[in-house]
Amino acid sequence: MMVKKKILLTMAGAVISIAAQAADAPAGKVDLVGRGAPQVDTLPDDHYGRLVRYGQELSTRTFAYIGPEVKQKSMRYAGNNLACTSCHQDGATKPYGMPWVGVAATFPQYRGREDAVSTVEDRVNGCMERSMNGRALPPDSREMRAYVAYMSFLSRGIPVGAQVSGMGIPASKMPNRRADLAAGGKVYEEKCAACHGANGAGLRKGKAGDAQGYVFPPLWGPDTFNNGAGMNRLIMATRFVKHNMPQGTNHASPALSDDEAYDVSAYMLSKPRPIKTGLEKDFPARWNKPIDAAFPPYVHGATADQHRYGPFPPLAEEARKRAAMQKSVDEARRLLDERRQQQQE
Amino acid sequence: MMVKKKILLTMAGAVISIAAQAADAPAGKVDLVGRGAPQVDTLPDDHYGRLVRYGQELSTRTFAYIGPEVKQKSMRYAGNNLACTSCHQDGATKPYGMPWVGVAATFPQYRGREDAVSTVEDRVNGCMERSMNGRALPPDSREMRAYVAYMSFLSRGIPVGAQVSGMGIPASKMPNRRADLAAGGKVYEEKCAACHGANGAGLRKGKAGDAQGYVFPPLWGPDTFNNGAGMNRLIMATRFVKHNMPQGTNHASPALSDDEAYDVSAYMLSKPRPIKTGLEKDFPARWNKPIDAAFPPYVHGATADQHRYGPFPPLAEEARKRAAMQKSVDEARRLLDERRQQQQE
Repeated sequence: MMVKKKILLTMAGAVISIAAQAADAPAGKVDLVGRGAPQVDTLPDDHYGRLVRYGQELSTRTFAYIGPEVKQKSMRYAGNNLACTSCHQDGATKPYGMPWVGVAATFPQYRGREDAVSTVEDRVNGCMERSMNGRALPPDSREMRAYVAYMSFLSRGIPVGAQVSGMGIPASKMPNRRADLAAGGKVYEEKCAACHGANGAGLRKGKAGDAQGYVFPPLWGPDTFNNGAGMNRLIMATRFVKHNMPQGTNHASPALSDDEAYDVSAYMLSKPRPIKTGLEKDFPARWNKPIDAAFPPYVHGATADQHRYGPFPPLAEEARKRAAMQKSVDEARRLLDERRQQQQE
Repeated sequence: MMVKKKILLTMAGAVISIAAQAADAPAGKVDLVGRGAPQVDTLPDDHYGRLVRYGQELSTRTFAYIGPEVKQKSMRYAGNNLACTSCHQDGATKPYGMPWVGVAATFPQYRGREDAVSTVEDRVNGCMERSMNGRALPPDSREMRAYVAYMSFLSRGIPVGAQVSGMGIPASKMPNRRADLAAGGKVYEEKCAACHGANGAGLRKGKAGDAQGYVFPPLWGPDTFNNGAGMNRLIMATRFVKHNMPQGTNHASPALSDDEAYDVSAYMLSKPRPIKTGLEKDFPARWNKPIDAAFPPYVHGATADQHRYGPFPPLAEEARKRAAMQKSVDEARRLLDERRQQQQE
């Protein structure tokens, strides 16, 4: 059985480069690799310390506080028994494992899914409604404050507005072919089933109904992320799996080949999962809809199957063209506006 | 007439010291003096740029967007025609003039008024309900997002969690006597009335009802901050006035003596202004209620008049004692909890 190996991050090798001497200088660059993350146990037992610790608890044991099996019905915000850290690796501190380190320095930020600037709270609720298959937390709830405080704490020392390397997940090479579900099934059986179960249902810590979540999270079926989650997009899932799975893997030493990561992710996404309605409202600026967002409308002139299972390189080429076209249109509009304004003056 | 002098902040003298090499190192120290602030005109005309610019507009021309005279009634959040920048000097960028530079790096933070950890949104709404004598903005409104984005933009380059010098207002020496309202009235007449008017009503840009706000803000009467605002506390007002008034003054070269600043602030606060109900709920942890919060309950064993007009040094001494006592109580509780836990193990 796959056992979680703790990756020790050496502080000695920490790299941070801050160019921001004055307010109008760039905010600097920070690399999360080898930097480590602040530890909550350094915080005193005061209001701030307690809120940050609650944020950590909510992140690692989400199911026990806001999951679908908690006693108080009004607190059932998450619709599945995952934890935030089922996806956000190593307590949301792992470089290239979708860490929260840096979130406070990089939000608010533009997000294509909303075609708008999102706050940290918006982003958390994006996950609540998709990866957690639930409903939005009230923005002024103690739970949302705890998430925001925890993310701010994890971001300590990172300059606001900095370019942070090691957030998100690295790109990986997408094979120029449709994903091979049969091959993916074989990879799954060999490399994933030991933890996640042959049926993808994960391994519960106790038993259903006890609000104690999972030792290894379910990947499909009723108790996992819905089809509106970022993880339900094949390119995203491939990048995540390639650089983080099986457990113990990191971005510097992937265990699966590009083909294996691609096929096994497609296998996972071919299975049934909760359905989110209203996905056609996602990515309202259609030109920047990701090519692997496998729900209508399909804007790159390809089939639903290609958006779901590839091949993606031709779609990527088409998306680049559309982005360039959009840029020209925006530029033309801007010039027209300028001319109009000049004529009025 | 007093004319606003633009204080030029030299970039050459910018000072920033960032000790944060690793995540567990302190987040560093930043001094806002001489550092300047990021300029919105460096931002492109995209979603983020537009939201930040709207945040700046909302801050400098609050009255025109969410003031009591705007056409759309549902948008009347502020109850007076002040701007945020009526108090937050130089577009909320002036060191020691209650700048917003650094806000994104220093929130969420503990606030005594709520005896809880406040987010940026909470803090903005604290002002909306008090200094702006209005009602809270919905936390997910475009206006709140714009404030948050603008404050994040202004904080660029400042490490999350850093100790920032130049935020707030500097301390100033409080004369050990009751404030002299007659003397304050004389200072007002000589140094303040030219801009703020003999009757404290300020100078409107246009006429009442046009939602165009003020050239110089009103200091008392119906169209200004209410009695729940921080500015309604005499020590706070004295510190602000001493280091920022008359316009053109800064922390390095105050124009008024400690006595003048104290008396003229007391004169201003002796005048009628909007009343906020429910102030007895402020500072629920009574031991850290500020000594110049001149509303019940009075927890330092002094009269209402002394909390309002001083002398403050004896109250400050009493507050120090109570804080030390509270610390001992907290420590004793902590030890007791530890012992109980040990006995259970």
